[in-house]
Amino acid sequence: MSSQFGHLFRISTWGESHGGGVGVVVDGCPPLLHLSEADIQRDLDRRRPGQSEIVTPRDEADQCRILSGVFEGRTLGTPIAVSVMNKDARPEAYREMEHAYRPSHADYTYQAKYGVRNWQGGGRSSARETIGRVAASAIGKKVLAAICPGLEVVAYVRSIQHLQADIDPNTVQFDAVESNIVRCPDAAMAERMIEHIKSVRSEGDSVGGIIECVVRGVPPGLGEPAFDRLEADLAKGMLSLPATKGFEVGSGFAGCGLRGSEHNDAFYMEHDRVRTRTNRSGGVQGGISNGEPIIFRVAFKPTATIFQSQQTVSPQGEDVELKARGRHDACVLPRAVPMVEAMTVLVLTDHVLRQRAQNSGFAGV
Amino acid sequence: MSSQFGHLFRISTWGESHGGGVGVVVDGCPPLLHLSEADIQRDLDRRRPGQSEIVTPRDEADQCRILSGVFEGRTLGTPIAVSVMNKDARPEAYREMEHAYRPSHADYTYQAKYGVRNWQGGGRSSARETIGRVAASAIGKKVLAAICPGLEVVAYVRSIQHLQADIDPNTVQFDAVESNIVRCPDAAMAERMIEHIKSVRSEGDSVGGIIECVVRGVPPGLGEPAFDRLEADLAKGMLSLPATKGFEVGSGFAGCGLRGSEHNDAFYMEHDRVRTRTNRSGGVQGGISNGEPIIFRVAFKPTATIFQSQQTVSPQGEDVELKARGRHDACVLPRAVPMVEAMTVLVLTDHVLRQRAQNSGFAGV
Amino acid sequence: MSSQFGHLFRISTWGESHGGGVGVVVDGCPPLLHLSEADIQRDLDRRRPGQSEIVTPRDEADQCRILSGVFEGRTLGTPIAVSVMNKDARPEAYREMEHAYRPSHADYTYQAKYGVRNWQGGGRSSARETIGRVAASAIGKKVLAAICPGLEVVAYVRSIQHLQADIDPNTVQFDAVESNIVRCPDAAMAERMIEHIKSVRSEGDSVGGIIECVVRGVPPGLGEPAFDRLEADLAKGMLSLPATKGFEVGSGFAGCGLRGSEHNDAFYMEHDRVRTRTNRSGGVQGGISNGEPIIFRVAFKPTATIFQSQQTVSPQGEDVELKARGRHDACVLPRAVPMVEAMTVLVLTDHVLRQRAQNSGFAGV
Amino acid sequence: MSSQFGHLFRISTWGESHGGGVGVVVDGCPPLLHLSEADIQRDLDRRRPGQSEIVTPRDEADQCRILSGVFEGRTLGTPIAVSVMNKDARPEAYREMEHAYRPSHADYTYQAKYGVRNWQGGGRSSARETIGRVAASAIGKKVLAAICPGLEVVAYVRSIQHLQADIDPNTVQFDAVESNIVRCPDAAMAERMIEHIKSVRSEGDSVGGIIECVVRGVPPGLGEPAFDRLEADLAKGMLSLPATKGFEVGSGFAGCGLRGSEHNDAFYMEHDRVRTRTNRSGGVQGGISNGEPIIFRVAFKPTATIFQSQQTVSPQGEDVELKARGRHDACVLPRAVPMVEAMTVLVLTDHVLRQRAQNSGFAGV
Repeated sequence: MSSQFGHLFRISTWGESHGGGVGVVVDGCPPLLHLSEADIQRDLDRRRPGQSEIVTPRDEADQCRILSGVFEGRTLGTPIAVSVMNKDARPEAYREMEHAYRPSHADYTYQAKYGVRNWQGGGRSSARETIGRVAASAIGKKVLAAICPGLEVVAYVRSIQHLQADIDPNTVQFDAVESNIVRCPDAAMAERMIEHIKSVRSEGDSVGGIIECVVRGVPPGLGEPAFDRLEADLAKGMLSLPATKGFEVGSGFAGCGLRGSEHNDAFYMEHDRVRTRTNRSGGVQGGISNGEPIIFRVAFKPTATIFQSQQTVSPQGEDVELKARGRHDACVLPRAVPMVEAMTVLVLTDHVLRQRAQNSGFAGV
Repeated sequence: MSSQFGHLFRISTWGESHGGGVGVVVDGCPPLLHLSEADIQRDLDRRRPGQSEIVTPRDEADQCRILSGVFEGRTLGTPIAVSVMNKDARPEAYREMEHAYRPSHADYTYQAKYGVRNWQGGGRSSARETIGRVAASAIGKKVLAAICPGLEVVAYVRSIQHLQADIDPNTVQFDAVESNIVRCPDAAMAERMIEHIKSVRSEGDSVGGIIECVVRGVPPGLGEPAFDRLEADLAKGMLSLPATKGFEVGSGFAGCGLRGSEHNDAFYMEHDRVRTRTNRSGGVQGGISNGEPIIFRVAFKPTATIFQSQQTVSPQGEDVELKARGRHDACVLPRAVPMVEAMTVLVLTDHVLRQRAQNSGFAGV
Repeated sequence: MSSQFGHLFRISTWGESHGGGVGVVVDGCPPLLHLSEADIQRDLDRRRPGQSEIVTPRDEADQCRILSGVFEGRTLGTPIAVSVMNKDARPEAYREMEHAYRPSHADYTYQAKYGVRNWQGGGRSSARETIGRVAASAIGKKVLAAICPGLEVVAYVRSIQHLQADIDPNTVQFDAVESNIVRCPDAAMAERMIEHIKSVRSEGDSVGGIIECVVRGVPPGLGEPAFDRLEADLAKGMLSLPATKGFEVGSGFAGCGLRGSEHNDAFYMEHDRVRTRTNRSGGVQGGISNGEPIIFRVAFKPTATIFQSQQTVSPQGEDVELKARGRHDACVLPRAVPMVEAMTVLVLTDHVLRQRAQNSGFAGV
Repeated sequence: MSSQFGHLFRISTWGESHGGGVGVVVDGCPPLLHLSEADIQRDLDRRRPGQSEIVTPRDEADQCRILSGVFEGRTLGTPIAVSVMNKDARPEAYREMEHAYRPSHADYTYQAKYGVRNWQGGGRSSARETIGRVAASAIGKKVLAAICPGLEVVAYVRSIQHLQADIDPNTVQFDAVESNIVRCPDAAMAERMIEHIKSVRSEGDSVGGIIECVVRGVPPGLGEPAFDRLEADLAKGMLSLPATKGFEVGSGFAGCGLRGSEHNDAFYMEHDRVRTRTNRSGGVQGGISNGEPIIFRVAFKPTATIFQSQQTVSPQGEDVELKARGRHDACVLPRAVPMVEAMTVLVLTDHVLRQRAQNSGFAGV
C-alpha cells in the first residue's frame, strides 16, 4: 500500500534511485484514449536530471517504454505499465553513505524502519521515484482532456529562498513557465533566481522555495465532504513529494489574520453560472470544487545533500563527519514543478472518475 | 469511500448536523483493550458545543453509546460502532439557507455535486461530523498506549488572528492546554484571545488562527517512503477537517528562507540512540519518523457563518442578501484542538499497525 | 477492513448477535434516489427470525431505522446509516457456550484469533450480522433500478438435503419463490421440503442444501478481466455468508465432465444483439458479463448448532460434552435466500458504478 | 483496482498475452528476506508453456527479471517489480480473432466492456496474466516461511473429465505431484489422464477437471468473521483464475446431503492443542482457520479455444464460422496447479500479515 495513490485511477510506482530502474502501473484508465510514449516523454523530459545548468548533472535520458495496456495507439482499459531503466547510476559515489547517515535525509529513518537500506542513493525517497508519477500524470491528462476539456493545470516557481516572483495565477500561462530554466514565469525574477542558485551551488550549499499551482476550468462538484476533501487529497499528494514541508490553499496561513467578514467570498451570478467575487477559498468550499480556479502553494526545503562537511552518525552508532559527493540539485524547485503538476493531475483524475461513478446523471451533472 | 479514513485502523463516519445523529464504525481495532463509554465521552466533551462562553451555544450533551465490539469492558477485535443522537437540532433556524447559499460555506458546492442538500445545517461539512473522528481517536489512544506506551499527543492554539502565543512544543503539557477555555497554554495570551473572540462575536464577526500539535515519544520507523509519508497522511488528516487552509511540518514555509547548511539537522549519538541537534525536520525524514518530536501547524480560517449581511445567490440563480441566524462558533479553534489531536491519533494508530504488519520482527524492531 | 464490502458502493457492517444491535453504513450511494425505511424493512422481514414455523423462533421484529443520508425521502449522496436494535437477546441461554466450544461453529476460532469472544451467541459469525447486508442491498436495488432498469435478481432454494426441486432459472419469478415458507418455487417439492425440515428439527438435528440465483437483464460489460472478475466477486460474496461451503457458476462442477466442443456456448445474432445458444458460461465470460442470465449455486451446510449431545472441548482445554440450548434454525436456507440475493445485489451495484466510472462514454456504453 | 489483489501484501499485475510482456509489482513485502530471480523462476517454470508434451507448445522461457526492491540478495521492504518479456508472441496466428469472437472466450465481453480489445490473443484474460501472480507467490512463500515455518501448500489434479484420482490430502507430497507432467499424485491415474489429454487434443478438442489444494500447518486464527472470511478470499482467488467455474471447501457441495449430526466436526484435545476428529469444515470455521488442514477444490472448464469449426459472430454483427489456430492447451489443469497454489499463497500471506497487525500480542498469539 505504500507505493499506491488514487482510488479509481490508481497508480503503483516501483523502483529505487540506484536499482535496475523505476516505473509505474496505472490501473483504471478509461479505454480508447490516444497514447504514445512521446506523450509521456514530453513530461518526463521536464522532470529529468541534466536538463539545464542549474539542476543535477546526472546523465539520465529517462527514456520511457510502455509495456502494456496500449494497442494500436489507444488505451485498452487495462493496466498500463511504463518503465524507465536507470543508466547513469554511479553507486560508488555513494560509498560514504554506507558508513554515515546524511543529515535531514532518509538514510537513518530507512534503517530504523526496515533494518536495511540500499545505501547507493536515496532509495524510494529519491526524486527518481517521481518518474512513475509524472508518467502516470501524462496519462491522467488524457483522461482529464476527454472529460473536462477546458481544464488546465499550471504550476510554477513562486519564490526561491527570499526571491519572490510577481505572478497572477488567473492568467499565468504554461509557455511562460517553460520559457526559462528555473520555471518562474516572472522573467526578470527568473534571471535573479538562476543567478542565486548558481551562486549557492558554487558554495556547496542549497536553497528551497515555494511552488504555486493553479487549476483553471475545474467543474464544480469535485471532492468529498468529509475525508477525501479535494484540498485534503491535494495536500496529501503534495506532502508525498520529496523535500516538501508545507501546503496551503487559497488564503492559506495568511488567511488566519483576517476576519470572517473580510475573508468570505461573496457569491454572484455571472449569466447562469455561480461565481465568487474573491477567491480566498482557493476554488474549494467544504472540500468540494466551486468552479473558481484552484490555487495552492507548496513549501520545499533546501536540498538536504550539500557539499559541505556535516556532523552525523554511522550505522554503527559512532559520531562521524560527512562530506557528500554524488550529483545533486542545489535547488529542487525547477524539477519539482512538473512533480507538483503531476500530483495535481493524479488527484483530479481520480476525483473526476469518482464523480462520474456516483453522481453524474443522478445529480443532473 | 468518502467517509472513511485509515487503512488498517479504518473508521467510517456517518451523519449530518441535522439528521438523526452522527457516529462512527471503527474497524481493525485490536482485541482485549479496556474500553468504556466514559473513555470516549471524555474526548467528546472537549469537542462539544456549549462547553464554554466562547463557543456555539447549541445545547448538545453529545452523549455517546457503544453499540458493538465491546464485551465485559474489553474490545472484541470486531467493529466498534459508536453513535451520538442529535438533540438540539433546530432546522427552522436554517430556513434562510434553503433559499440562499452561505458565502464560503459548502451549500453551493453540495448542490453542485449532489443536486441536493440538507439545507437544515451544514450536512457532512459541519463540524458535527467530527464527533465520529473524536470518538474513534479515543479508541485509537488505547491502541497507541498499548503499543507505544510513552507516546503523547498535545495540540493547542498557537495563534488567534494576530495574537500569537509563546509555547515550547518540547515541554508543553496537556493540563496547561486544558487550563483555559481557548486551549492556549500561554496563560497570559489565552486571556487576550478569549477577550478578542468575545469582542469579535459581539460584532457578529469571526476569526481564525493556527493550531500547533506535537507528538512526543514516537518510535522511529513510522510512515512510508513514497505516497503514505507520515507528514502526507497528517496533512491529509488535517486538511480533511472543516475550515482548514494550510499545513506545515517542522520548519514549514519559513524553512524555505534558509540554506541547506542552516536547515539540516545534524545527527549525534545520545547513548545508544540516534538524535538530532535541531528539529527543523519536525520529527519526520523521508516520510518516516526519526524519533524526535513530530511538530506541525494547521491554519484555520475565520468561521464562514457570520451574523452580518452578505451578498450571495439563491439556488434559483438570483442575487440575494443573506443574514444568517442559527448558532455558530465565532472562532472554531478551541473546539478544533481535540479534532486536530484526533486526526493525529488516527494517523499514528494506522501507521503503528502497518509497521507491526510489515516490519516488526523482520527489521529487528 | 474485516467488516467492509465493495469498492465504490461500500458497506461497513457492525454488531454482534447479542450486543446492543446490528447495522450498516453505506458509502458511495448516488443522490436523489427515493428511499424509506419501508423499502428496507420489506427485505429485512424476509430475513428475520420468527417469520414462519420452520425457522428459529427468536422473536425479533428487526425494525430498522435510517439514521443519516436521507432527506425528505431521498438519498443525499452521503453515508446512509441503518441500525436494528436487538430485542430478544437471551444471553443466559448461551451460558453453556462460555464453557464449551460448539462443534463446527466459530467459538474456538474466535478465541484463537482474538483471545476473547462474546460467548453470548455467535458474535459476528451469526446470521444476525447479515441484517446490515440485507439493508444495504435494499439501497443497492434502488441504484440498480436507476441504472439498469430491467435487471432482476431471483434467488431460491434448489435443494434441501436430498430433495431437489425442478426450476427453470430463465423464467422463475420472485412471487413463486415467496409463495411458500421454504422459498422453493417448485410448489410440490416445497411441501416435501417443509415436512422434511420439521421432521429433522423434531429430532434436534439440522439439514443443509443448495440455493440457486439468477440475474436477468444484466448489461454486458460488468466485471474485470483479472482479479475482480464478476464470478470471483460473486464467489467471495457468497462464501462470506455463514454456513456456505461452495459456489459454482454456469455449468459449474458438472461442466468438468464435458469436452470443449460440448461446453462452448455458440454465439449468434438476435437482431442487433449478441446472444449465446446455450448458457454454460452462466452469463460471464472472461470475468465479464455477456448479457445472458447470470446463474450460480451456493452450497449451505447443515446448521452447526444441533440439540443433540456432542463431544467437544472447553476453553480450559478439557474434553467435555455439550448439548446446546438457544433458538436456532434447523435449516438456514429459507432465510438465506434473501442473503444470497443481497450479496448479489451488492456485487452488481459496485460493478455497475465501476463501469460508469471507467468505461461509460469512452466505450460507447 | 481491476489488477490488484491483497490488502497488505498487495500485488498489481500488468500485461497482455501479446503486448511487450507481463509482470507484477508486489507492495508490502517485509524486508530482509532472501530473494533471487532463481526463487521466482522455479515456480514460473512450472507454469510456463512448452514444459511438456501435453501443454501448449508456445515457446516462452518466461525468464523473469527483478527490477526493484531487492538489494544484495535481500528484500528492502519496498515494492518488488518483476517482469517477463513476451518472446514467442505470434499475433498473426490470431488474425481470425479480429473478425470473429471465440465462443466461451472473453473476446466479445472485452469488446462490450471497453469498446476495444487487443485481438492478438486473450489480453488480460489469457493465462499469461497469471505469470505475475505466480511470481508474487514465490515472494509470498518467503514471507510464509518466515512467519509460519511449518506451513505447506500442495495443489494437484484431482480429476480430468471423468478420470478421478485417489489421493489423501493429509499426506500427499509436493514431489509426488511434480513426478508426472499432468501433476496428479496418483501415478496410475496420471498415466491415464495423460493419454486422455493427448487423445482429446488429437481430435482438436479440450477437457477440464478439478484441482484440489491442501494447506497443512496453518496456524489457527487466520481470516475474518464477516466479509474477508478465509474461504471467501480463497474462493475469490480461485474464481479469479481463467477457466474456473466452481469452488468448494471441506465437505463442499456433497456436505449438503448430510445432517448436522453427521456433518459436525467433534473437538478433542490432543495434548494442549484443540483438534477435530473429522475435517468436514475443511480447516475453516466461521471464516477463520482452526489449525486443521485447509482443503478445497476448484472446477476448471474445458479450454474454450478448440480446433474445430464453431458458430459465432463478428464484431460487425454477422453470423460467421470460426476455426481457431494459434497454440493452446487442450487441458489447462497441469499448468493451473501452480496457479491455484499461487493464489492460495497470496491469500494466506495477506491474512498472516493482517493477523500480525491486529491481533498478535494482544490475543496472546
